[in-house]
Amino acid sequence: MRNILDYDSVELSPNGRDVIILDQSLLPNQEKFLHLTTAEQVFYAITLLKVRGAPAIGIAGAFGLAMCMNRFKAKNLQAFDKEFLRVKRYLYISRPTAVSLMVTLDRMERCYYETEEEAKDKSDFETMRLIRERLTAEARAIKLEDIQKCLAIAEAGFSLLKPGVGILTYCNAGHLAVSRYGTALSPIYYAQQKGYMPKVYSCETRPMLQGSRLTAYELSKAGIDVTLICDNMASDVMRRGKIDIVFFGCDRIAANGDVANKVGSSMLAVLAKHYGIPCYSIGPMNTIDFGTKTGNDIVIEERPAFEVTDMYFDKPVAPKGVKVYNPAFDVTPAELLTGIITEKGIVAPGDLARLKE
Amino acid sequence: MRNILDYDSVELSPNGRDVIILDQSLLPNQEKFLHLTTAEQVFYAITLLKVRGAPAIGIAGAFGLAMCMNRFKAKNLQAFDKEFLRVKRYLYISRPTAVSLMVTLDRMERCYYETEEEAKDKSDFETMRLIRERLTAEARAIKLEDIQKCLAIAEAGFSLLKPGVGILTYCNAGHLAVSRYGTALSPIYYAQQKGYMPKVYSCETRPMLQGSRLTAYELSKAGIDVTLICDNMASDVMRRGKIDIVFFGCDRIAANGDVANKVGSSMLAVLAKHYGIPCYSIGPMNTIDFGTKTGNDIVIEERPAFEVTDMYFDKPVAPKGVKVYNPAFDVTPAELLTGIITEKGIVAPGDLARLKE
Repeated sequence: MRNILDYDSVELSPNGRDVIILDQSLLPNQEKFLHLTTAEQVFYAITLLKVRGAPAIGIAGAFGLAMCMNRFKAKNLQAFDKEFLRVKRYLYISRPTAVSLMVTLDRMERCYYETEEEAKDKSDFETMRLIRERLTAEARAIKLEDIQKCLAIAEAGFSLLKPGVGILTYCNAGHLAVSRYGTALSPIYYAQQKGYMPKVYSCETRPMLQGSRLTAYELSKAGIDVTLICDNMASDVMRRGKIDIVFFGCDRIAANGDVANKVGSSMLAVLAKHYGIPCYSIGPMNTIDFGTKTGNDIVIEERPAFEVTDMYFDKPVAPKGVKVYNPAFDVTPAELLTGIITEKGIVAPGDLARLKE
Repeated sequence: MRNILDYDSVELSPNGRDVIILDQSLLPNQEKFLHLTTAEQVFYAITLLKVRGAPAIGIAGAFGLAMCMNRFKAKNLQAFDKEFLRVKRYLYISRPTAVSLMVTLDRMERCYYETEEEAKDKSDFETMRLIRERLTAEARAIKLEDIQKCLAIAEAGFSLLKPGVGILTYCNAGHLAVSRYGTALSPIYYAQQKGYMPKVYSCETRPMLQGSRLTAYELSKAGIDVTLICDNMASDVMRRGKIDIVFFGCDRIAANGDVANKVGSSMLAVLAKHYGIPCYSIGPMNTIDFGTKTGNDIVIEERPAFEVTDMYFDKPVAPKGVKVYNPAFDVTPAELLTGIITEKGIVAPGDLARLKE
């Protein structure tokens, strides 16, 4: 069996002319790699969730922009400029909630104009060559930085573990969602490489089943001992002493340490507190939003009933027209968390301010 | 829309020659009533989960036995005796875990022999006529007693409610599983009839989805305001103040008040305690097992991985061969429950012994 850590969910071909992605919408039944060669293909890969996970989307956008410019045949710099802005603006709107995508595309734009400025005495042809080179390097650098952040997170999380540790995890903040290692799953991969043989329980994470479709998939591909449970079984496995620590990701962290993450995270935090099990939220520094005071200020997206009653099922599993409440996220109050782990290390949730520089 | 309370999931036709059941395996997509006229049809209706819920299965068995004897043409009492024992033993093994089925069939057997003894001076023909009459009456009495128990439970549970109350419920211990009203859902139906307009949240209850397929179905059919949520959203609705009380059923209660019920019940009890919400387990007296000291002595059935990874889905939702832990029940320790509700009223979980007479 191929180890999932040997390849990434988003890659740029060595010649910079193909964005290669693992089609996550087909997992776990089919492993298909797609070679994307147009802006439209990148756009739809993002829209149709073939690429998912905020960091992976950001990287796909940066690679997509570099790939398009590497392939674009311009008769002069003016046409090149125009195409760059067209592609950048087009990809920018492919996933409105993914701030990471906008951040990386803006960074690519700065790189573009800085290079153009630097090359202002050169020929159009020479300028375009340099811009292509720099955009490709910048996109690769974005991914590399992302991997380094994940590694720093992995080391911090690993410091909490002992050999044979039982870990409960939720949703998917792993290798597939990010780049190598992932965030919430990174200490698990790191522990596996150190020979700690962690025993992982993955909650299926209704309604979108990221825990079964993606986390159970990627951990078992990597040879890690993973057991799938339904979300409502978390209390039982904790009560039976199977869990030493809980790790989940974060979508947004308020200044006071309240964490918005996939709905059900607050359930795990309450259960962990009841059973006396440490519980950590894990994510990169850029998920901390110092402008948001508390979790109550975070607006929670409500998603359609269809996801609960029909999606993935062969027939509807609820009576037609039944009312459904389907929030995508919930808020875990800071006081329920043992700590928050970022690339800067482990911090108490009430002590986030000291990370602000 | 027809109100579900106008019909029962298991009925005996007025002439005693047909057992009429609502085929629960087709819900919520199709409402089909089956007329069962042979022992084999009753057997398979139970085996194939067309009838489900312990009390409903018991009633189906008693009705089935009466129906078969009402239809059986015997040339003498000896042949009648033989057929009775054949059918009784056959139905007895249709659902090995349903103690209620065995209890009601044994009760039917006592009725049979008592009637035979009483009629020992009569002709074979006259004896068979009397037995048919008594078996039919006994089976109807079993159902009536069940309805009366549910009503007593409903009244006890109702005493805890206020108009507009928000109730969280789990799995299905309702009208479909029992007979009229059900157990855990009975206070809800009662409150609705009293004009209290309860607002009910039903957890879908993975992996078998009884909460969406059955509870959301029967409550909405009865015109009750019901909202379906995934199990992992219970914490969020509690945190938002939507829930005033939690009601779930019980499969078995130990002498110390620990309750075994559908897996996830202990999760709700932990969450309810954290959020300061009262939480009750509801069931008939015969689920209390005074011979079992604590919840640790209750053996929990583990069910196949298939239910989590494949059942109801159009494609597998987890990687092939992944390890799955799928306990059917979990144990809620007595100290997490506010009370236990039976037909004898509400009792503190630590105070069960006083119900033992």
